Amino acid sequence: MTLRINVNADMGEGFGDYDIGDDATLLDIVQTANIACGKHGGDPGIMRRVAEKAAERGVSIGAHPGFDDLWGFGRRQIQMRPNDLEDLCAYQIGAMQAMAKAAGTAISHVKAHGALNNMACTRADYAEAIANAVKAVDPTLIHLVMPATELEAATVAAGLPIAREAFVDRTYEDDGLLTSRAIEGSVIKDPATAAARVVKMVRDGAITARSGKVLSLPFDSLCVHGDEPTSVAVAKAATKALKEAGVALVPLPEMVKPA
Amino acid sequence: MTLRINVNADMGEGFGDYDIGDDATLLDIVQTANIACGKHGGDPGIMRRVAEKAAERGVSIGAHPGFDDLWGFGRRQIQMRPNDLEDLCAYQIGAMQAMAKAAGTAISHVKAHGALNNMACTRADYAEAIANAVKAVDPTLIHLVMPATELEAATVAAGLPIAREAFVDRTYEDDGLLTSRAIEGSVIKDPATAAARVVKMVRDGAITARSGKVLSLPFDSLCVHGDEPTSVAVAKAATKALKEAGVALVPLPEMVKPA
Amino acid sequence: MTLRINVNADMGEGFGDYDIGDDATLLDIVQTANIACGKHGGDPGIMRRVAEKAAERGVSIGAHPGFDDLWGFGRRQIQMRPNDLEDLCAYQIGAMQAMAKAAGTAISHVKAHGALNNMACTRADYAEAIANAVKAVDPTLIHLVMPATELEAATVAAGLPIAREAFVDRTYEDDGLLTSRAIEGSVIKDPATAAARVVKMVRDGAITARSGKVLSLPFDSLCVHGDEPTSVAVAKAATKALKEAGVALVPLPEMVKPA
Amino acid sequence: MTLRINVNADMGEGFGDYDIGDDATLLDIVQTANIACGKHGGDPGIMRRVAEKAAERGVSIGAHPGFDDLWGFGRRQIQMRPNDLEDLCAYQIGAMQAMAKAAGTAISHVKAHGALNNMACTRADYAEAIANAVKAVDPTLIHLVMPATELEAATVAAGLPIAREAFVDRTYEDDGLLTSRAIEGSVIKDPATAAARVVKMVRDGAITARSGKVLSLPFDSLCVHGDEPTSVAVAKAATKALKEAGVALVPLPEMVKPA
Repeated sequence: MTLRINVNADMGEGFGDYDIGDDATLLDIVQTANIACGKHGGDPGIMRRVAEKAAERGVSIGAHPGFDDLWGFGRRQIQMRPNDLEDLCAYQIGAMQAMAKAAGTAISHVKAHGALNNMACTRADYAEAIANAVKAVDPTLIHLVMPATELEAATVAAGLPIAREAFVDRTYEDDGLLTSRAIEGSVIKDPATAAARVVKMVRDGAITARSGKVLSLPFDSLCVHGDEPTSVAVAKAATKALKEAGVALVPLPEMVKPA
Repeated sequence: MTLRINVNADMGEGFGDYDIGDDATLLDIVQTANIACGKHGGDPGIMRRVAEKAAERGVSIGAHPGFDDLWGFGRRQIQMRPNDLEDLCAYQIGAMQAMAKAAGTAISHVKAHGALNNMACTRADYAEAIANAVKAVDPTLIHLVMPATELEAATVAAGLPIAREAFVDRTYEDDGLLTSRAIEGSVIKDPATAAARVVKMVRDGAITARSGKVLSLPFDSLCVHGDEPTSVAVAKAATKALKEAGVALVPLPEMVKPA
Repeated sequence: MTLRINVNADMGEGFGDYDIGDDATLLDIVQTANIACGKHGGDPGIMRRVAEKAAERGVSIGAHPGFDDLWGFGRRQIQMRPNDLEDLCAYQIGAMQAMAKAAGTAISHVKAHGALNNMACTRADYAEAIANAVKAVDPTLIHLVMPATELEAATVAAGLPIAREAFVDRTYEDDGLLTSRAIEGSVIKDPATAAARVVKMVRDGAITARSGKVLSLPFDSLCVHGDEPTSVAVAKAATKALKEAGVALVPLPEMVKPA
Repeated sequence: MTLRINVNADMGEGFGDYDIGDDATLLDIVQTANIACGKHGGDPGIMRRVAEKAAERGVSIGAHPGFDDLWGFGRRQIQMRPNDLEDLCAYQIGAMQAMAKAAGTAISHVKAHGALNNMACTRADYAEAIANAVKAVDPTLIHLVMPATELEAATVAAGLPIAREAFVDRTYEDDGLLTSRAIEGSVIKDPATAAARVVKMVRDGAITARSGKVLSLPFDSLCVHGDEPTSVAVAKAATKALKEAGVALVPLPEMVKPA
């Protein structure tokens, strides 16, 4: 049987005349794009164009809702009433559905962005708000989350299709959390190291922590970023190694509902 | 055969802690609500709550997209590239669809707001951009427009379901345009006058201009506003008179696709 | 010797076509207005017009900077880098100075708004950021703060002119903090009660806690709000009682730099 | 006597995590920076940092107010009431003054941005609104404008210190207007051509139109942009040639108030 995995990345985070990230390159590396929805980044035109380009390449797309904070790029924690947060997420998912429709395609998943995602990993009220938003707009959408978090729990409780993600370029602690960026070596910057690591992760179906402990964290998707100067090189090396190891790289829906 | 007409009003134009308009009163007068979509007014929570209340009363709802200009309340003309405008409208329609879904209901029409609507009455490129947006997101949505405008022409050309509106509290010129607000008497402020006028309009199936000329302007819906101090009283008197005259007041979809 | 006190209120918190609060009434009650600066509320035109009206009545004005969050009306906590916060406050103070200048007047103080003020009462980094912003833009501006807070400490450390405020319609705990709104009776809604209380406060030069304990909290200004349905009546009764008790109600600068 | 000229460029037009333009390079070419004020581009932190860097290099700075339209980067025409426009400009000038003050420096001029500048060249009401804003905030600020425009006329009428600008990389028509970008050759992309042209312009104290006609357009400053792929090379070549021709490149205030 062929091993399979999905690789996802955040895209479409520019705004008007502002570009950020390297969408063109990432679209040739990943099988799934999380598209910003106009609040922490993205605008209606960018949303549509990224959806079009993704569809041309067979890359599956999802809504990537964030806080309403363009200045902070969605990376600042904001204390909201959970029902406001639910509505804010539902709004963005609907806007993204429309832009995907206009591009002749459709979204198949949702993944929360930045500080919103981080807060929902540990806060049950935020986690429920996001899961409720997905369910309210379209309960067939896959919710892409980090395993062993409140966000995963709320997604399971809501009965949504779920996919879990692991990180290509980050090390893990024994409790399943990411090693703090403040710790030397927590971000894997060497392409060869990252490549060897992800092939082992996919073959083992498990993540090995810094200590050597094998973590029981399931994952359906590997997340790559365009943020670090080294991250595109790391992402390229990782996906190349996976292919050479005979791992099939597939869009997210295929990981959740196998053919 | 029973005469039928629809009455529509703009709603949900508050933002956060800001209230504007008298949605509660208008929801008991009209059969159709045009709900602001978060750009010229409205926010995700207001959109959802107005949709819920409308559904409870059997009031049909539509997306009411406007320019991205909260400060100007969508009443300032903005020169945009038509494709940006199309995307801006599609975005808002999708967001409104999601909030309606979250409220357990669905939108059945789209009506452009303020300066956007005004510009699209005379500019073919703006008219096409709006019609294209509706078509791209959902070609079964009714587009509610003023007759004898570029917006009507673009809507017909796009093959969209169309509804036309007339104004309860405004007089008309011989060319079918509204009398300028600068002219004395152009806004009808007396409830009895408005009531008599709309009953005649619906019975005649025609609008009589200030000059007495009968205009060949079809209409499926009567628009009422909450802006003027007199407008709610005018709207109440007009709908009461219509009911007393035996005219059935029905949601917009029933005007377009008769049972 | 005549007893003196200042009364301040937040104003100019509308935006575009949105009105909120009753500025016209409050301008006849208070001697000092805190004017919103366009981020949590307020727009350039409102800022100028409130400054003009305040000047006509001899009401002193100040900048009332808040988080960049119109949707949340500045009442949502946002986690920002302190240097970003300092710049955000400086920006708003400068904008308010310009609108005051255009109105033929000048600001004499700064008071932080809503969640920003609340956070700066207990977080030293936020407190320092705000005090630094005031100092960087104009070190002669009075900083209006709650006593016994980090914000007071940072203001003293920065060497800024300082004024302290107490609340007309709120009860206090023994530690000098406001009684939580969740506790019955924490908001004083009876005008006569509030009137008697503020006269005693000003005569004693002290605040009495719910327990009867006399708190060593200095204050130069009494804050009134327009939020509660009862608050304008409470503010009117309190200022009337102060005048009848022979207390002089003076603009904030006179409290800080006595003639 | 030494010939003198000023070279100015727009800067600080990023927003949050978004970069745009090459401020670091331009700061070594020009003697004057027009700094975006947070509405069409720029944020409080960027405003302060560009002001600091400009001060370190002896580059004079000015406020560069634009329409409140980040999505459109201030390049979309917006129809505003002139008094709203005046307030919008005053607000931005004040905000920039504060950020300059926080950076230990001060602005010495104002130059309108993008569509706002373009509209004010031909619309007297917009021109007066901008000139009134400058005058209301600080009548000693230099207003940097295109000659032979409504903006120049309003600035003279307001009695403001005035500086006029010409373009390094654009050709002119006989009526003194810029050749439309739609016409081949209207944008000068060859550094050597631009260099020869500006030296001649400064020596002649005049601009030669495409036809060869000598235009009676005074100018104190040459505007360079960072927009075109060729524009930084053009700007470098032009300033290098001016220096080699013995022309002194000086900050804007020295052009208006000669030592």
